[in-house]
Amino acid sequence: MKKVALIVQYDGSNFSGWQKQKQVNTIQETLEEALRKLSSQQIKTFAAGRTDAGVHAAGQVVHFETDFVIPANKWAGALNGKLPKSIRIIESVGVPIDWHACHSAIYRHYRYFINNSKIENIFLNKWSWHRYQKNLNEITMKEAIITLKGKHDFFAFQKSGSTRFSSITTIKDAEIIRKGDLIFIDIKASGFLYGMVRAIVGQLILVGESKISPEDFHHRWLNKRKEEVHESAPAKGLCFINAVYKKNVFKTFNNHDLFPKFLIEGYS
Amino acid sequence: MKKVALIVQYDGSNFSGWQKQKQVNTIQETLEEALRKLSSQQIKTFAAGRTDAGVHAAGQVVHFETDFVIPANKWAGALNGKLPKSIRIIESVGVPIDWHACHSAIYRHYRYFINNSKIENIFLNKWSWHRYQKNLNEITMKEAIITLKGKHDFFAFQKSGSTRFSSITTIKDAEIIRKGDLIFIDIKASGFLYGMVRAIVGQLILVGESKISPEDFHHRWLNKRKEEVHESAPAKGLCFINAVYKKNVFKTFNNHDLFPKFLIEGYS
Repeated sequence: MKKVALIVQYDGSNFSGWQKQKQVNTIQETLEEALRKLSSQQIKTFAAGRTDAGVHAAGQVVHFETDFVIPANKWAGALNGKLPKSIRIIESVGVPIDWHACHSAIYRHYRYFINNSKIENIFLNKWSWHRYQKNLNEITMKEAIITLKGKHDFFAFQKSGSTRFSSITTIKDAEIIRKGDLIFIDIKASGFLYGMVRAIVGQLILVGESKISPEDFHHRWLNKRKEEVHESAPAKGLCFINAVYKKNVFKTFNNHDLFPKFLIEGYS
Repeated sequence: MKKVALIVQYDGSNFSGWQKQKQVNTIQETLEEALRKLSSQQIKTFAAGRTDAGVHAAGQVVHFETDFVIPANKWAGALNGKLPKSIRIIESVGVPIDWHACHSAIYRHYRYFINNSKIENIFLNKWSWHRYQKNLNEITMKEAIITLKGKHDFFAFQKSGSTRFSSITTIKDAEIIRKGDLIFIDIKASGFLYGMVRAIVGQLILVGESKISPEDFHHRWLNKRKEEVHESAPAKGLCFINAVYKKNVFKTFNNHDLFPKFLIEGYS
């Protein structure tokens, strides 16, 4: 058996997330179906992060094992021929048999993208949340997000229904970048709880709209007050950027952040 | 009668262009249908530029006349309530009765967007042409495009089937901007011939791929050798950016270039 790792990009709009489930359309199911078409084998895939319904990926990492004859670097092209246009394999490489897309990852990187303009923008709508009740104050949002750094129990940000054993995780980095009316929220963590980024963004919006203070934000999660965390940002603004490993196994990119940064001229 | 001007944004993917035609879905038809739903009147619309099938608009300008009661600045919101999500009215304003979206414009601005990366990008596919036969040489492309500036007969770039009287037009500005693997081609002209930008881009690609020289490019259009102009770039990479008037009538933006500039980290 050989092990192959993939960088996978997808438009999550019309999928019920990564993980295979009965009677719904998932990325994993679609990918395994393409693998079956190519090899006539039932091949099981493992992803670095299980993205939820509607969430996109710029550099999802996936591995699988097979004894099928296709050379590791040829799987990308072969799979793209069998996949719908909403899923693209960017690269395929051979990896050691003990390498694991999920378990070998040091951290994962998600980005949330907000359009804080008064007006919608057709070219951004698919990948962003158009939120304008008022101009978001990124200064207070930055004060709030900085409290997340480190190893903490983020029980307050875990959506009910999680099968995860513990709600403790390490946030390596969390930052907010504003360019005109466009806001990017980048979070890198060892692991992500179910619904965590969307809950964090939902709460950060409250801070940016002066509905709660950065201290309120901090105390809500620090004191595990999940009952106060109601707001959650919509899935379409969220993108899995990449997974980072101790030793990069991919050839093409050291940093496969393939989610475009957007800039608009003439915005107020 | 009062005259109202609109800034209109649209995703041209599923439309047969701006201009109303029988039995196909057009922007003009859809907009006039929304106007009819609101006012119960047959209102005729006029656009700054008649975009072709599949071409997008970031800041199309449209006007219409009506005696209906809605105040000029309220038409934007009212129309958005009746339009599909693929057409958005960014702003509506009252204009003098002798003002004309098309005839009062000094020039129009189109942008063509090319992804010259080895790999596709799901987040850009809808708005760009993924073209990679080789790395495009933007130096020679710039040498070619510069020849277009000024008042010339661009018969060679006019697609057959045009109803236009003359193929003479003035190109005010034509430039190429490269950011990593992404290439923007911006053309500003007093008027555009049928299929002109896509023909220019098709020929520029030949220059960038060293299939013809910048001089060949120049001579082809200068000597009206339409029979040598076969290549034309696909519609989805083209966007109508805006129309510019002697006196700007819109309140929100002086420059309504609402087409995002894209930037990708980690690209080679």
